[in-house]
Amino acid sequence: MLTIAIPKGALLSDAIKLFQSIGLDFSAFLDPKNRQLQITDPTNTAKALLVRATDVPVYVEYGQAQLGIVGYDLLLEKTPTVANLANLKFGYCRMSVAVPASSPYKSPVELPPNGKVASKFVNCAKKYFHTLDLPVEIIPLYGSVELGPITGMSEAIVDLVSTGRTLKENGLIEIDTLFESTAHLIAHPLSYRLNLDQINPWVTKIRDTLS
Amino acid sequence: MLTIAIPKGALLSDAIKLFQSIGLDFSAFLDPKNRQLQITDPTNTAKALLVRATDVPVYVEYGQAQLGIVGYDLLLEKTPTVANLANLKFGYCRMSVAVPASSPYKSPVELPPNGKVASKFVNCAKKYFHTLDLPVEIIPLYGSVELGPITGMSEAIVDLVSTGRTLKENGLIEIDTLFESTAHLIAHPLSYRLNLDQINPWVTKIRDTLS
Repeated sequence: MLTIAIPKGALLSDAIKLFQSIGLDFSAFLDPKNRQLQITDPTNTAKALLVRATDVPVYVEYGQAQLGIVGYDLLLEKTPTVANLANLKFGYCRMSVAVPASSPYKSPVELPPNGKVASKFVNCAKKYFHTLDLPVEIIPLYGSVELGPITGMSEAIVDLVSTGRTLKENGLIEIDTLFESTAHLIAHPLSYRLNLDQINPWVTKIRDTLS
Repeated sequence: MLTIAIPKGALLSDAIKLFQSIGLDFSAFLDPKNRQLQITDPTNTAKALLVRATDVPVYVEYGQAQLGIVGYDLLLEKTPTVANLANLKFGYCRMSVAVPASSPYKSPVELPPNGKVASKFVNCAKKYFHTLDLPVEIIPLYGSVELGPITGMSEAIVDLVSTGRTLKENGLIEIDTLFESTAHLIAHPLSYRLNLDQINPWVTKIRDTLS
């Protein structure tokens, strides 16, 4: 049976809508009382695993799910060994550099070479500042990255921005965008090639909904 | 002013009780409507930062907080450069190896050498299996580690257990304990030594509540 890894959080409802549009109903995951982490669709065609967004590429990489939905940001940050099959267009956000509105730094290249940047996306941030040839120190935080500049621990942050509300509430402004991100359909490379007959019809149906 | 990093989640209410018992009131963090991430106690003596448990050692390491409260499990997993001042005794849990109740493996050494173990605590798990001289592969997961054995991705998990309810609900049983964990009081080593007069009275008061 086809197994699909679906991320909890921001991409969940759009992911479930997408699969409904190709005949696979996993809407039980949207029930607030649901505690199940794996369900089979009512037609008994496919199984879905409900996992943390960060864990989706892990389940796909290890072949426990043949398909998965994941934000492009996580593909760039974790560089998992998965096949990137389609840009699903939903879940738009951008990876931005932000500083306090009162900051003297109006552009990333103005940041001091010994400066500090807080981020959950350590690899993306490192690569970006490496490209700018700016040897800042990346401070790895797991939550509330905006506290970095507020407490004075860092001059800037690199974080995902969707509506911009969190930045605004914390007096931060964007000074550059690293990249834009949307949800992507990924597959386990080997099982995709070996089970093309089983998996490809679903991938084609998904691609058809995008055009 | 003294700044203290306090972890969200399981240790929060006991941490706030501890500081109340030495005259510092940060109970505003317990108000479900609270959105503030830093507050000063009513006597204007100390400031508290409310951060993710994983981020507490980061704020202390970078000197943004002179003191912090963190689970021993995170000290072992992240090995931050902080001074470990006191075992606060609350927040008991244990790091355990667990397998499905139906598993043929009744002890960690029976796990196959090419076996897979899912864990959020990759470093603790690696060190433990290295000591056993068992070359298992550690699969890094960020949430719902119990899905590892359920989906067949891993033979076992290494995870924190407090009541054991999650394991039971998922048909898993503990077969070994790596270590026991409680909350610890940590400090920024340099600022602790340089500001001994300012910080030590508080540390002494906290130690006095323990005896």
